Amino acid sequence: MPLLVMKFGGTSLATIELIKKAAERVKIEVLRGYEVIVIVSAMSGKTNELISWVNDTTSENEASLIYDAREYDAIVSSGEQVTAGLLALVLQNQEVPARSWQGWQVPLKTSGNHSSARIEEIPTQNLRAKFSEGMKVAVVAGFQGLSSDNRVTTLGRGGSDTTAVAFAAAFGAEQCDIYTDVDGIYTTDPRVCGKARKLNQISFEEMLELASQGAKVLQTRSVELAMRFNVRVRVLSSFDPSPDQSGTIVCKEEDVVEKNVVAGVAFSRDEAKMTLISVSDKPGIAAAIFGPLSEAGVNVDMIVQNISDDGLTDMTFSCPTQDVDRAKNALLEHRVSGQIHFEDLVADTEVAKVSVVGIGMRSHAGVAAQMFNTLKDENINIKVITTSEIKISVLIDRKYLELAVQALHNTFKLEKLI
Amino acid sequence: MPLLVMKFGGTSLATIELIKKAAERVKIEVLRGYEVIVIVSAMSGKTNELISWVNDTTSENEASLIYDAREYDAIVSSGEQVTAGLLALVLQNQEVPARSWQGWQVPLKTSGNHSSARIEEIPTQNLRAKFSEGMKVAVVAGFQGLSSDNRVTTLGRGGSDTTAVAFAAAFGAEQCDIYTDVDGIYTTDPRVCGKARKLNQISFEEMLELASQGAKVLQTRSVELAMRFNVRVRVLSSFDPSPDQSGTIVCKEEDVVEKNVVAGVAFSRDEAKMTLISVSDKPGIAAAIFGPLSEAGVNVDMIVQNISDDGLTDMTFSCPTQDVDRAKNALLEHRVSGQIHFEDLVADTEVAKVSVVGIGMRSHAGVAAQMFNTLKDENINIKVITTSEIKISVLIDRKYLELAVQALHNTFKLEKLI
Repeated sequence: MPLLVMKFGGTSLATIELIKKAAERVKIEVLRGYEVIVIVSAMSGKTNELISWVNDTTSENEASLIYDAREYDAIVSSGEQVTAGLLALVLQNQEVPARSWQGWQVPLKTSGNHSSARIEEIPTQNLRAKFSEGMKVAVVAGFQGLSSDNRVTTLGRGGSDTTAVAFAAAFGAEQCDIYTDVDGIYTTDPRVCGKARKLNQISFEEMLELASQGAKVLQTRSVELAMRFNVRVRVLSSFDPSPDQSGTIVCKEEDVVEKNVVAGVAFSRDEAKMTLISVSDKPGIAAAIFGPLSEAGVNVDMIVQNISDDGLTDMTFSCPTQDVDRAKNALLEHRVSGQIHFEDLVADTEVAKVSVVGIGMRSHAGVAAQMFNTLKDENINIKVITTSEIKISVLIDRKYLELAVQALHNTFKLEKLI
Repeated sequence: MPLLVMKFGGTSLATIELIKKAAERVKIEVLRGYEVIVIVSAMSGKTNELISWVNDTTSENEASLIYDAREYDAIVSSGEQVTAGLLALVLQNQEVPARSWQGWQVPLKTSGNHSSARIEEIPTQNLRAKFSEGMKVAVVAGFQGLSSDNRVTTLGRGGSDTTAVAFAAAFGAEQCDIYTDVDGIYTTDPRVCGKARKLNQISFEEMLELASQGAKVLQTRSVELAMRFNVRVRVLSSFDPSPDQSGTIVCKEEDVVEKNVVAGVAFSRDEAKMTLISVSDKPGIAAAIFGPLSEAGVNVDMIVQNISDDGLTDMTFSCPTQDVDRAKNALLEHRVSGQIHFEDLVADTEVAKVSVVGIGMRSHAGVAAQMFNTLKDENINIKVITTSEIKISVLIDRKYLELAVQALHNTFKLEKLI
């Protein structure tokens, strides 16, 4: 019997009424002949309630905002457990043989790094045994697993999407349907550019670049996993009542039949640019700078090194604005201890990143030139540039973000299939 | 190192502030040199929220108010999981080495009858291993366990008290302290009789009779278990800040040093008396009547059979008022099918039960006579009487309940130790 994985996020399960809607959608697939594994998030808002309680436990002692992540995981994982049970009950009520599975019951085995554990193995025998006994739907609590020392782990941000893709890979599912609050992947965010168009298909590579460059529909880790195990992912809306909505298929490059040179424009609003002035330019200097930043938990994104002058150079990098203080502290600390030498540290926290992504760039030269010309025509100064095989990203002043996205969307004619 | 079991109910853990108070109380015992197992209930109100969601899953289909108890258990058990994690975090914050344990992690092994499972085994090696590694407090989610097919079970009403006593028995704890919203066991409910006195000690047997006759502080099952395994139980208030409050000790009869002939007066307000008129009096008739009632889930309490007259007799029994409709349906159904013969069925739903309990009755004759005289002096008619070795119960009109309790409390001089 063919098997389908379906995933519903927290906004799609926020009330019993919405859970009933999700169940109807699941039932449609069962009636079409599928065995279904449903991955659920916690009711929207519930995880935040649980996290706020965890934070309250430490409020009297500000020094210890660090709490035991194993307890955090035990508490926070309860949210998915509840929606899994409720969806199973609603399905049973609609006469669909269903049961819930908590992470430790599957068991979904993970690494031991709590709150951001990685999936290590999903043994299939327990679920398969129940499918062969007549279970049609396994409702699995997403975002959670079991460490080798028998404690509950959670997978961190985006963990439910990742759980869904991992189950699809482990069970050889025909497809992994991600139900969310939008009806697919767009050429860019429709709130920023009114001409944004829903894509029918997109390649893993492009989706991965879009996700890591700021598109929020799918989490980067889940796309990586889908690409690695060739899991066809479909993004579609849980609020669209039509049983036949198409959504957007994320799949192998060769299966994408319609494509423009550029697939989409992604952006990330809250970026900062930091420059170390007059760094001594000698071997090992990059490691000396970025090692401490990594240890401090700073997500360094772009890195640019200027041409050396008199053995001194300027080193520029970008990171999320929320990491700026940590980055400053780490760098100044290591200057005091003599491990890094630089004259000054300049932070510009008013920048944003815009990226143009498309597999067509591999074969089409001139995309970069088109991009730079478009920004020049709008009088937008480019502060940093990085490229990959299928992506060009630039840092610009944050105030020009919307203008840049709209102009690039026009330049590459993303409003229509060429 | 001596080991103590402490149990906190939902009203004692309803907010983070209360959880911090509970943690302070636990810490006192750790500083006194104990290893501690804390059994927690869900935050007061949370279990009801979860149950209401479960009920909502069935609301469209009134016929199926019966839901899969396995899913019910998976959902409802999440409440204790949250408080266990939160209390562990607060303890860690107070520098007490603590961790949480869900039922399946202990693992607390139960029977498979979901929502009212019975504890079968509590292996001690997992907790003991952690104690030997330096853990001082194991915070265990109460009310829940694991069935042999690896699903979460719950123990039903009073399950957290029972969990606490079972842990105390399994680990050979010095004592099992039940923290609740009252400061001990009283001679009767202080809301009904202002002269009610807190007992310093009470025997298992008396506590068991009081609990099963309507005293609500301890659940009957937990007292049975404590008696069977000789676990010293102490009931005390989680709202009393004094670290030295005495509470009430429930222990073996021979350890009770102070005792009156009568220990207390218990009552149950919502009772009904049902009489089957002109039942044919032949062997097997009791089984024919009470078998179907048991199957229908009717909690039959007292049973009285009148003297037979012409081969016909009247059969009277009492049950909670909420069971009356089920009892009627079951009996009428079996009359229709010819399995039971009776002329009429009379229900009196305006009765209450008052019980006098005391181990002293074994050696002191005349307690029954004193009780009946007291009620006669107040012009209270007795409708049914049952007795055990250490208890006399009567059914009376509900409107005389308070009067009867107060008069009996006076007669047996319960306001002071004799």
